[in-house]
Amino acid sequence: MGKTRERLYEIIFEADTPAGKFFDVALLVVILLSVALVMLESVPAIRTNYRPILRILEWVITGIFTVEYLLRIIIVRKPLRYIFSFYGIIDFLSVIPTYLGLFIIGSHHLVVIRILRMLRIFRILKLTRYTQAGRTLAKALWASREKISVFIFFVIVLVVVIGTIMYIIEGEAHGFTSIPRGIYWAIVTLTTVGYGDISPQTSLGQFMASIVMIMGYAIIAVPTGIVTAEIINPSYKGNTQVCPSCLHDKHDDDAKFCKKCGAKINP
Amino acid sequence: MGKTRERLYEIIFEADTPAGKFFDVALLVVILLSVALVMLESVPAIRTNYRPILRILEWVITGIFTVEYLLRIIIVRKPLRYIFSFYGIIDFLSVIPTYLGLFIIGSHHLVVIRILRMLRIFRILKLTRYTQAGRTLAKALWASREKISVFIFFVIVLVVVIGTIMYIIEGEAHGFTSIPRGIYWAIVTLTTVGYGDISPQTSLGQFMASIVMIMGYAIIAVPTGIVTAEIINPSYKGNTQVCPSCLHDKHDDDAKFCKKCGAKINP
Amino acid sequence: MGKTRERLYEIIFEADTPAGKFFDVALLVVILLSVALVMLESVPAIRTNYRPILRILEWVITGIFTVEYLLRIIIVRKPLRYIFSFYGIIDFLSVIPTYLGLFIIGSHHLVVIRILRMLRIFRILKLTRYTQAGRTLAKALWASREKISVFIFFVIVLVVVIGTIMYIIEGEAHGFTSIPRGIYWAIVTLTTVGYGDISPQTSLGQFMASIVMIMGYAIIAVPTGIVTAEIINPSYKGNTQVCPSCLHDKHDDDAKFCKKCGAKINP
Amino acid sequence: MGKTRERLYEIIFEADTPAGKFFDVALLVVILLSVALVMLESVPAIRTNYRPILRILEWVITGIFTVEYLLRIIIVRKPLRYIFSFYGIIDFLSVIPTYLGLFIIGSHHLVVIRILRMLRIFRILKLTRYTQAGRTLAKALWASREKISVFIFFVIVLVVVIGTIMYIIEGEAHGFTSIPRGIYWAIVTLTTVGYGDISPQTSLGQFMASIVMIMGYAIIAVPTGIVTAEIINPSYKGNTQVCPSCLHDKHDDDAKFCKKCGAKINP
Repeated sequence: MGKTRERLYEIIFEADTPAGKFFDVALLVVILLSVALVMLESVPAIRTNYRPILRILEWVITGIFTVEYLLRIIIVRKPLRYIFSFYGIIDFLSVIPTYLGLFIIGSHHLVVIRILRMLRIFRILKLTRYTQAGRTLAKALWASREKISVFIFFVIVLVVVIGTIMYIIEGEAHGFTSIPRGIYWAIVTLTTVGYGDISPQTSLGQFMASIVMIMGYAIIAVPTGIVTAEIINPSYKGNTQVCPSCLHDKHDDDAKFCKKCGAKINP
Repeated sequence: MGKTRERLYEIIFEADTPAGKFFDVALLVVILLSVALVMLESVPAIRTNYRPILRILEWVITGIFTVEYLLRIIIVRKPLRYIFSFYGIIDFLSVIPTYLGLFIIGSHHLVVIRILRMLRIFRILKLTRYTQAGRTLAKALWASREKISVFIFFVIVLVVVIGTIMYIIEGEAHGFTSIPRGIYWAIVTLTTVGYGDISPQTSLGQFMASIVMIMGYAIIAVPTGIVTAEIINPSYKGNTQVCPSCLHDKHDDDAKFCKKCGAKINP
Repeated sequence: MGKTRERLYEIIFEADTPAGKFFDVALLVVILLSVALVMLESVPAIRTNYRPILRILEWVITGIFTVEYLLRIIIVRKPLRYIFSFYGIIDFLSVIPTYLGLFIIGSHHLVVIRILRMLRIFRILKLTRYTQAGRTLAKALWASREKISVFIFFVIVLVVVIGTIMYIIEGEAHGFTSIPRGIYWAIVTLTTVGYGDISPQTSLGQFMASIVMIMGYAIIAVPTGIVTAEIINPSYKGNTQVCPSCLHDKHDDDAKFCKKCGAKINP
Repeated sequence: MGKTRERLYEIIFEADTPAGKFFDVALLVVILLSVALVMLESVPAIRTNYRPILRILEWVITGIFTVEYLLRIIIVRKPLRYIFSFYGIIDFLSVIPTYLGLFIIGSHHLVVIRILRMLRIFRILKLTRYTQAGRTLAKALWASREKISVFIFFVIVLVVVIGTIMYIIEGEAHGFTSIPRGIYWAIVTLTTVGYGDISPQTSLGQFMASIVMIMGYAIIAVPTGIVTAEIINPSYKGNTQVCPSCLHDKHDDDAKFCKKCGAKINP
């Protein structure tokens, strides 16, 4: 019994054996299929014409996910820890909406929950070599979090002020019906999205808008600069050199002597 | 009395004591609430239905800000200097519009002034660790000010010329009713905002627009390059320290010893 | 006979002789002309008024390309290898649609194939000094392929989740008629394209949209950072050369001596 | 006489004396005024109501520019060289349209020429410290010209192919009336401008568009990377170190030994 469990553990949780790899690929296919299904179901024409087949497929997929979920609980060494882990919750949320749909009528909003099945892909990818690239990016973003927070905070203050000014200038007649609407316009403009659903009509408004656009064009350089700098010169400093004399540990890659105490650093 | 004043000073102007921290957080909440209030007031539906409650809240917040403002004047060592400082003026502008609203009818435009309350958040943030990140960014932007000015000046000349050409090509029938309108379109296009409220209709106009767009796509690289370069290799790091022993001259600001030869650097 | 063939080979496949250079320039002109022809043919007004002349020009160009194609097959040393090479297939696809047009009525879609003639330009450019620049860029992009894949995968997951949420929030009445439509909107917004054909109408939808836009504004920094880092510090420059004397290991590809200690590096 | 000429030369062509500086500032004001005038003239409401005053101002400015132009010709040492220099031609084009307007009726298009007066600002700026910043940027762009050309060529091929495919997919009914129109749409989309004047209506078209947008989002990284890399590591290599042994001259800033021949480099 322990042997079977051990083996199932290898297949379901790891990707080192051929069976484990096959399981991952199969699961990936089912996940993608299930996400495609949720999408197709939302298209009116398809929903009307293929309702029975969509229902059957949904139940088949839910069945597979349910079996997988139960297997994971049975096999894992610490079931409770799994159940309340990030992926445990995602796995639970992947199956529960379909069952709830039996009891609740008009469970339209459960669709969002089912789309979360997509996040399960990350668990499978975790086992691949793409993780390294992902981790590098995540590290760079994480290391820039303070700078990016400051930047986003600054952008928010900017759009609030701009949005208010435009609300005064353009007024309700030109679509700027309230300050939040003005702020929405300011964000649309500053980020260079530019839907055009609201756009300034007066000369003064267009002049202000021009300034905002050029501003947006210039300040997009800031997040880019932050992240690029972080990827090029990671502030966590890749090298592990520590000064043998004063224990300072943030040395440039080409440093030969500690810049703090002047002691020679071991290469 | 001096003791109380000292203590109040610590609470209101600093953030080192628990009471000071609590004061800052409380103030932050009131500021955000007050900004939210100004926004909500501008939404027609809300303004009509909740007028009494909005009025009361506005007066409560104005009251709090007034007390805080007076306290600051009383407590600070040099009241005049505070009153005419940046934050002193912001603090004054935070309370005055509500009082003015009593006398002036249709004080619609005072709303812009009240939104400036938002800037008070910066004072509170000044006391946090996010300041360092903000200062780094500000330094990088400040160091790039000449390059960015040249770039923006170049962009302005470009859009004036492009806007004039498009005014000739497209003419008033297609929405390019004047050169300023053409320039507005050129900015909307070059910055890749693209509202679509004015867009070229003739083949020649669309051809010109295509060139402008590809240009805009390419020259956005310039501000990004400037800021990124500045963040990676701060030009102020070109501090004037030169190693007296090996003449190496690119030392970090916090370097005490030459990283190339280990000699002590004059501070 | 062998002499003539040798000479033709030099003219057609190489660009070292004056005749070879002339051949390349002439071919470039014909290719550009042929692409322009395909474009003009698609314009209704031109198609109607100039049909005869367009037909003649098309056959002339097809004739030239056919002769060139046959010459290449005859002259090249390994004809089969050429025929099934990338450019061999492109060359074949450059001539076949016109012949097929004789038999198939309404061969409207063959137009896409004819536009592929454009790719033939790359062969000619291959012989110029622009190749070096192109290769550097291609290398940088290729070296970043994993990071960019991870980024794009992340963007896809993001837009699927956002698109689904917006489908729920805005609903079919506001243009978000299905989840795929919501995803389309999310892509249009996140990439800051912003057509405005679908745009959020509800306050909650506009709030969500604002978050998505600021997000898009911030995460565009990621691909930029990746590629910039790669161009500046090519990771393949992490060539495995290590100085045998001082163990310095970041040498340029063309370095023969260690730039730190002057010792000879093993090639 | 020679003394007066010398003095006038200093005033008009240089900016070292107070008089020279005053002349430059005065000229700058007149230029900006003249450009503003051209713009205002194009606004229908202003043109109708203020025609007489606009005419007078135009003639005053033209008069000033004419006097200045003649003075430059008289004072400069090599008049012919000046007349046919870049700024000589700009100066000529600044005055001639107004005179031509006397003879030619409906000289509407001369407006473009008059806007070129704006370029005269560059001559004045040339004498300021902003030139250094401008030159650095220009150098970086010039050094990246090959890479940017390759990139733009690649973008052009891409939009031609995408435009053709979309013309086939969407067809004339959805606004893609010809291949050039499809290419126009592809440029609008790839550069993330997104007017929305033409946007895909079919599901397949929107799917294709989504791919194009994500592509555009990713490849904008390329020009940014090129320019940033160039600004950070100028390929013309700022330092003037030349190897005393082999005369190799592209050393890193931190190089101590020539990487080509191993000789010690003078710091």
